[in-house]
Amino acid sequence: MTLALGIDPGTATTGYGLVRLLPDGELAAVSYGIISTPKEATPSARLEMLFDDLNKLLKKYKPDTAAVEKLFFSSNVKTALAVGQARGVVMLCIQKAGIEPFEYTPNEVKQAVAGYGGADKRQVQEMVRALLQLEKIPKPDDAADALAIAITHLNTTRY
Amino acid sequence: MTLALGIDPGTATTGYGLVRLLPDGELAAVSYGIISTPKEATPSARLEMLFDDLNKLLKKYKPDTAAVEKLFFSSNVKTALAVGQARGVVMLCIQKAGIEPFEYTPNEVKQAVAGYGGADKRQVQEMVRALLQLEKIPKPDDAADALAIAITHLNTTRY
Repeated sequence: MTLALGIDPGTATTGYGLVRLLPDGELAAVSYGIISTPKEATPSARLEMLFDDLNKLLKKYKPDTAAVEKLFFSSNVKTALAVGQARGVVMLCIQKAGIEPFEYTPNEVKQAVAGYGGADKRQVQEMVRALLQLEKIPKPDDAADALAIAITHLNTTRY
Repeated sequence: MTLALGIDPGTATTGYGLVRLLPDGELAAVSYGIISTPKEATPSARLEMLFDDLNKLLKKYKPDTAAVEKLFFSSNVKTALAVGQARGVVMLCIQKAGIEPFEYTPNEVKQAVAGYGGADKRQVQEMVRALLQLEKIPKPDDAADALAIAITHLNTTRY
């Protein structure tokens, strides 16, 4: 059954989550975690680490489909540029693996996972835990966010 | 002698310029132009085209060093994110070629090429033409900007 990769891209930390849609329609977490890059490294070296680590994940799990969080910032343009760089590398990596990455805004994720766009972070995380039948809320936050994106994508495209 | 690649990254159009520092200390344009990607293509497909085309340039010319324009936007966060994505792919591509990309702000480029940070676009372009001993100002603008970045890098690191 369909295996979806969700990615929450960031400059220092990128969350990933792999979720499988089971034959009975339920969802199961296959793997989740973060890709971190050291502050001491140059910006381009950090982008390369992100690219290489994500590539390893794609080769190991061979997801059928993938989704990346679409970000909108209210104020900080410098951060937007830096996150954009990480996001560009993530999109490229997924595309190079032969998968067309889908994009969802944080509100679309909240709507799909928690039922309404105004849900708070904790509510979304609790729904991720419940939908994936995990004992605890997945940690760290970036990994939980990435699982939420994968769930959003599967629930948006399954019908 | 040192061959420098300058890149002016953008979502639809990325300018490139290759400048050689000659034994007599003069500069010569080796190649310049733009990498364009079609609007109809998906964002990730466009990033892949940019990556692949830039990779071809790096393999063909084997520059010794490279520099990318460092952007600061005053207002538009959405544009910053999109340009950041293209910039991330450019930085990754250069890093993957074994070159550490340098970064210069538009003001640093104006200062290095035209002598002062308040120079206008036309003055910078005219100086690029003069320094590279070209008959006409290189076209399009993104290519001229990329040559200016390569010149800035060579003039900043040559001493």
